[in-house]
Amino acid sequence: MSMRYLSARLAQQIDEELMSAAGAFSIDQLMELAGLACAQTLATVYPRDRYPRVLVCCGPGNQGGDGLVAARHLGMFGYKPQVYMPKPGSKDIYKRLAKQCENMEIPILPPTTDVSDLENALKSTDVIMDAIFGFSFKPPIRAPFDKALPLLAESRLPIVSVDIPSGWDVEEGNKAGLGLNPNVLLSLTAPKLGVKDFTGRHFLGGRFVPKSLEKKFELGLPPYPGIEQIVELDSEDKPGELPM
Amino acid sequence: MSMRYLSARLAQQIDEELMSAAGAFSIDQLMELAGLACAQTLATVYPRDRYPRVLVCCGPGNQGGDGLVAARHLGMFGYKPQVYMPKPGSKDIYKRLAKQCENMEIPILPPTTDVSDLENALKSTDVIMDAIFGFSFKPPIRAPFDKALPLLAESRLPIVSVDIPSGWDVEEGNKAGLGLNPNVLLSLTAPKLGVKDFTGRHFLGGRFVPKSLEKKFELGLPPYPGIEQIVELDSEDKPGELPM
Repeated sequence: MSMRYLSARLAQQIDEELMSAAGAFSIDQLMELAGLACAQTLATVYPRDRYPRVLVCCGPGNQGGDGLVAARHLGMFGYKPQVYMPKPGSKDIYKRLAKQCENMEIPILPPTTDVSDLENALKSTDVIMDAIFGFSFKPPIRAPFDKALPLLAESRLPIVSVDIPSGWDVEEGNKAGLGLNPNVLLSLTAPKLGVKDFTGRHFLGGRFVPKSLEKKFELGLPPYPGIEQIVELDSEDKPGELPM
Repeated sequence: MSMRYLSARLAQQIDEELMSAAGAFSIDQLMELAGLACAQTLATVYPRDRYPRVLVCCGPGNQGGDGLVAARHLGMFGYKPQVYMPKPGSKDIYKRLAKQCENMEIPILPPTTDVSDLENALKSTDVIMDAIFGFSFKPPIRAPFDKALPLLAESRLPIVSVDIPSGWDVEEGNKAGLGLNPNVLLSLTAPKLGVKDFTGRHFLGGRFVPKSLEKKFELGLPPYPGIEQIVELDSEDKPGELPM
């Protein structure tokens, strides 16, 4: 069975099932495992000794939460992360995750709509983690991300995107041409339709999908190796798509 | 700086700080990372192809929660875990973690004080995970664990204990002789005084202690390798103990 690329609707439905009474996961659990997978992906491709300074860019939604968890684990791995989060999420979990970063002495840029702090931070960055927009993104790109995304792209720094590159449509990809072009992508749970033609290094994370759910949605996930939390997808895994 | 072995009081204090408003961790986060480290430790020593059938023995407290998380990850790793949990914790989190195991089709033995189910389960087990009692254990060993611990010991199966072998005093170790003698031990956060003379393979997990906390309590934790969630302690790490 080949791997299924998810529509926006299906991605949303799987997320809801995982966190329903039947799925029984808390968002804390899923975010912790997702963020760990993000950090491990970046560390696998961009080793600490050559790429110590990571700018973790976080959006206001769940994806930003994954980014904050990733920043903390990157700190644990010995990187020097800093966080760009101009629109902090209002939920309690974001405040707790941000506090955990502070306790790791990870700098968080001041939350302003002025992008000059971002411009400065990029000058002392080796690699970017893009955790800005996730699968629920709908255009237009709102301020200050309308200015931030071009700055990230123009920096020419390597970019690791989480789940869906920021600015891409979850189903149509980067057809509108407004999105980032990351070097590395970590799909979470299962890849989305919009990244089917992604040509960079593509990893899968989110080793928490129970067999029952995998069968129900015919996800056809590839096996993860050993005790790892991420698996790199090769070209053989990529072409698969179930008829809808 | 050598690694510090924690008193019961200090272990409790560190746990409380991690989950305080200042530490900002939720129990869901810490249990997820602890349980993942438990599963990875077992899988590192007892490979799936030779030890597929794991009996995860869970107590009624937080340690039992770590065990449930470990059982789920072991299922993800391709093991065939089953859970012995005769006294399920009453908190909501245990119910959710147990449900997550059910969704992974992991059998949970019926919660009875009769140990005949345990006796039968041991006949089809390759390795035991002991997540029964943690650092807050105080004798006497209550039913049905008073009967269960001897059965586990008599089974002669390899045992991986979580944090402190069940039946051991957190500071005095197994002086009373009532505890298990595991082959492998995973200390969480930092090792406890009672396991200072443990002679089996000893791992450390809980890669979530912020630098500030590590400094405050002078933990002297060894570095974890790369992106790993566990580190094996060797004899050089072991003798260290700070003057109190």
